[in-house]
Amino acid sequence: MQRYFTNEKLSLFEPFFISGDDFHHMSRVMRMKSGEKVYIVDKEENAFIAEVIEIGESAVKLSAQENIEKSPELPVQITIASGLPKGDKLDLIVQKATELGAFSFVPFAAERSISKWETKKVRKKIERLEKIAKEAAEQSHRTHIPTISFCESFTVLMNRLAEFDYVLLAYEESARLNETKTLVSTFEKMKPGEKLLVIFGPEGGVGDKEVKLLTQANVLFAGLGSRILRTETAPLYFLAAASYHFELEKSF
Amino acid sequence: MQRYFTNEKLSLFEPFFISGDDFHHMSRVMRMKSGEKVYIVDKEENAFIAEVIEIGESAVKLSAQENIEKSPELPVQITIASGLPKGDKLDLIVQKATELGAFSFVPFAAERSISKWETKKVRKKIERLEKIAKEAAEQSHRTHIPTISFCESFTVLMNRLAEFDYVLLAYEESARLNETKTLVSTFEKMKPGEKLLVIFGPEGGVGDKEVKLLTQANVLFAGLGSRILRTETAPLYFLAAASYHFELEKSF
Repeated sequence: MQRYFTNEKLSLFEPFFISGDDFHHMSRVMRMKSGEKVYIVDKEENAFIAEVIEIGESAVKLSAQENIEKSPELPVQITIASGLPKGDKLDLIVQKATELGAFSFVPFAAERSISKWETKKVRKKIERLEKIAKEAAEQSHRTHIPTISFCESFTVLMNRLAEFDYVLLAYEESARLNETKTLVSTFEKMKPGEKLLVIFGPEGGVGDKEVKLLTQANVLFAGLGSRILRTETAPLYFLAAASYHFELEKSF
Repeated sequence: MQRYFTNEKLSLFEPFFISGDDFHHMSRVMRMKSGEKVYIVDKEENAFIAEVIEIGESAVKLSAQENIEKSPELPVQITIASGLPKGDKLDLIVQKATELGAFSFVPFAAERSISKWETKKVRKKIERLEKIAKEAAEQSHRTHIPTISFCESFTVLMNRLAEFDYVLLAYEESARLNETKTLVSTFEKMKPGEKLLVIFGPEGGVGDKEVKLLTQANVLFAGLGSRILRTETAPLYFLAAASYHFELEKSF
């Protein structure tokens, strides 16, 4: 079944309209007819099965038929802070981590980032990633579309730590030293709705100054298993581990 | 146990000395005696358990007793059977799943595979994937290079099931139906060295005939969390969950 988002709040059996690009997609691309059913996620992230009532000139009229109860969202909010990696790796991170349940993304200019974002290009780069996140959210049947915000320096990122209940650094050295307890014990402590920020370095890892600042801020350093993961693979590991912990083992 | 670093390269059972601040810490702060044990990480980042031989005037003499550098391999052998996906997605699966600890790969021609492997091209395609696996194994500091073998039909894959201690199907419908227990309970049962095969459908999912055959073979169907994962993302989820379970939670 096709899946669409609306900025309205929906109520069961009350008609609503979809226009713009999604109207085009429904009427021209999918050639939908009255009676067909689609998934709709409303602005409060509730998911419904809705029936097409009528295809109009510039909008589709629908009616929400059924509220889909089970949330496709992780019970905790995980924000992925990635030191700007090379090439188009951030595209892969945002696409795959959105499928795996990331709540939001904070790319940041890291000490060892080779890739740079020129100030005048930031808006365009964020819009590109937002589009990737939206498409991946639709594809994976999520109700929340992850947001993207850029930190132009590590200091700006440090100033945001207080927004989160937990902050972890995914640290390559911790994996080397066989650190296995931090991730499990952090997940064990977390309650539904709590917010976690996890920081990943770029290709060269986190820099010495960054490690020092994070240590001073009492951020915990977590190992992610026994292998060295690439900068674009580590966030995917982290989110899959969170899903395994919160959705399969505990399922609260 | 206390943990110290040395700038030397250590060898098992060869005595070495620690002086300076760490000598002070060991002798005065910790008041260590001969026979006590400490963790030592050497300049090549190998970790050892070392025994204090003698506390001298300005240095502690120790001997490395045991190399505790953990194996970079998952304690269980996980084989990824992927229904041939479109385009170059298999490259991504093999690269990332190798980083995440896959033991071997079995691409198979699935009922719903749009991509086909012509018989005369199979050798070349496998060689390409072997090269990707080797490079990813090096990159992630693994000691095992995953092998690749092709099954030209689902029947050939079915005939191989007996090679494994456990066989699971990663089933999209199981996720939809909120199946959460199969993966956890399978991992709970597994002992070090045991072999698990996990089967993933191509883009369209596993076919009805395949589901029927697997059901007849008593293969269990496992859900992988609350979101719909793409065919190339699901194996990465599976391996990260295995690492979290076997390396972080249990660490046997």
